[in-house]
Amino acid sequence: MKKLNRRDLIAGAAAASAAAAVSTIAKPALAQSRLEWKMVTSWPKGLPGLGTGAERLAKRITDLSGGRLNIKVYSAGELVPALQCFDAVANGTAEMAHDASYYHLSKSFGTAFFTAVPFGLNAAELNAWVYFGGGQELWDNLYHDFGIQAYLAGNTGVQMAGWYRKEIKSLDDMKGLKFRMPGQGGDVLRKLGVTVVNVAGGEIFANLQSGAIDGAEWVGPYNDLALGFYKVTKFYYWPGFHEPGAGLECMINKSKLTALPKDLQELIVNCCHAENDAMLAEFNARNGEALETLIRQHGVQLKQLPRDVLEGIGNASGEVMQELLDKGDTKTKNIATNFVKFRTNIRRWTQISDQAFVNARSLNFKYPG
Amino acid sequence: MKKLNRRDLIAGAAAASAAAAVSTIAKPALAQSRLEWKMVTSWPKGLPGLGTGAERLAKRITDLSGGRLNIKVYSAGELVPALQCFDAVANGTAEMAHDASYYHLSKSFGTAFFTAVPFGLNAAELNAWVYFGGGQELWDNLYHDFGIQAYLAGNTGVQMAGWYRKEIKSLDDMKGLKFRMPGQGGDVLRKLGVTVVNVAGGEIFANLQSGAIDGAEWVGPYNDLALGFYKVTKFYYWPGFHEPGAGLECMINKSKLTALPKDLQELIVNCCHAENDAMLAEFNARNGEALETLIRQHGVQLKQLPRDVLEGIGNASGEVMQELLDKGDTKTKNIATNFVKFRTNIRRWTQISDQAFVNARSLNFKYPG
Repeated sequence: MKKLNRRDLIAGAAAASAAAAVSTIAKPALAQSRLEWKMVTSWPKGLPGLGTGAERLAKRITDLSGGRLNIKVYSAGELVPALQCFDAVANGTAEMAHDASYYHLSKSFGTAFFTAVPFGLNAAELNAWVYFGGGQELWDNLYHDFGIQAYLAGNTGVQMAGWYRKEIKSLDDMKGLKFRMPGQGGDVLRKLGVTVVNVAGGEIFANLQSGAIDGAEWVGPYNDLALGFYKVTKFYYWPGFHEPGAGLECMINKSKLTALPKDLQELIVNCCHAENDAMLAEFNARNGEALETLIRQHGVQLKQLPRDVLEGIGNASGEVMQELLDKGDTKTKNIATNFVKFRTNIRRWTQISDQAFVNARSLNFKYPG
Repeated sequence: MKKLNRRDLIAGAAAASAAAAVSTIAKPALAQSRLEWKMVTSWPKGLPGLGTGAERLAKRITDLSGGRLNIKVYSAGELVPALQCFDAVANGTAEMAHDASYYHLSKSFGTAFFTAVPFGLNAAELNAWVYFGGGQELWDNLYHDFGIQAYLAGNTGVQMAGWYRKEIKSLDDMKGLKFRMPGQGGDVLRKLGVTVVNVAGGEIFANLQSGAIDGAEWVGPYNDLALGFYKVTKFYYWPGFHEPGAGLECMINKSKLTALPKDLQELIVNCCHAENDAMLAEFNARNGEALETLIRQHGVQLKQLPRDVLEGIGNASGEVMQELLDKGDTKTKNIATNFVKFRTNIRRWTQISDQAFVNARSLNFKYPG
């Protein structure tokens, strides 16, 4: 996914004030007290999927509270810089944030599990783990130390492996590449001899064009089309092993949250659930459309990472996970232990359900369309 | 999925009244007027996943409305029989229902698309179609004629192909079988020479045991474990081609809905979204656990339908879809046309995202757990 810098954020500013103007609700008859809360994000306001998802979440809460809880969204850089939402919510600078938990690896490596880890869980499996597999309790145990409550509030679905200037035909072709990939996906590539570069989202295009980097991952067709990478390279690789279903989070300052009336606390939970449902559907629908545009209008060539590359990445991903189990702090170890056990069980189900179905749908038979 | 008869419903009755007793909310300060609404369902109240999902949806609306809109859930047979929710909502006997749209094929074959059609869309794709691909508008166009508004409000995920008394080794083994499968999945099997039997859910076990039927589909491990089919046969086949992601619906009497204050109308939409997110996660988490129990404690053998059987089913599914496109009523044709176009586009995305990821995860590499 993305790391944003200040230059990314200018475009969103106009949309920000416009959206804020319409987000208050005329329900004074019901309003016992009107709270004005700030929601900081790591996204430019207009960013499709992530930014619009944060806006939709804030609007849901504002509207459904009947004006009792008004949420104003701040795009990255407006109140705090991108990737600094965690501290802002912890210290009360903002009451809420919409963000990705793996931006907080400096607090604990355990934070990664609530977004995505290489060859981990897809979106459906992540939801199953967090809601019904003990994930939420582990997340609470981790974040409550910082005075933060977090809920799932969106998912990008499976991302793309990224854009490569040259074709990748074997594991050897990976060695020495300079590639942009943040987080644990980057740790995995490093084990394969890749020089991992962290370039902010808005700088990827220029770096690709100048040849400073040989490739980069960003999100998927819907977001990547907007940034125009197809103008520099046509090789667009799949699958996104590193983020098979990147969960987004809504963080809330815990003391501010528990001071709310019970029904408003429940409303926030409910609206996060709703946004979690909506955002994934939006990405899946728009990615399909954007992919057609990339292929038909821009001549992008879709390429699958070769089997030996995927297996090499798989082994490296296993090593990264083993290191978290062996060397992580206590909470990271607990999360990783629960996660890998859940992953083993649900994989068995996924293999004979969703995986088996989509593979059967790819067999040789006639179907309209 | 299931067809229920009156005998299924007795067990849920005690739970019903207990749940109703705790579902009212003490927030009189906010309540301008208290509405008492009935939600009929096609499920026994305690039925895991479907029944508990309906209860959870009703509780969300009741709680978050601050007592202004109180929803009481009626299990199948308490107010109207199972599978008769549509008419009950249309004529105002109940204000709401939690149900599956493909139970209303007698109104229009177009209703099938908002639950599941053989080799159609999985849960993630169905959400993308309904929310962002034009599906909701087509659904509105179909149901508004009957004075009903419906929203997605849950999903079972991919179901199992079912329980077979004898092994299926080729397409020929299907011929002459007596198999329980309702809806368009049954239409598909009929084209393969299967004698399709519609046996209500509560009668499947006895029919399997007596040999009156040779096999049956129900839902998936979580629900099938509860009904004990493993005591009669150990052959449990996958994948569930017929219901790759069965969407559940919340129906609301449209004139009752539009008479509500705007914020309560939005609250219902939001709570349906939340339940859509929660139920699929519950099925995925619990199916994984139940599958382990079926295999380890009850010696169930998982079997994949052979390739030629799946391809034969695929061709038959294509024929069933073509018949809907050619011979359906106007609204069914419109829905089917939009659906198959969306399916073609999103499949291209699914193939390189979710499908590619889960297949890559099945390659040969070491990973903890």
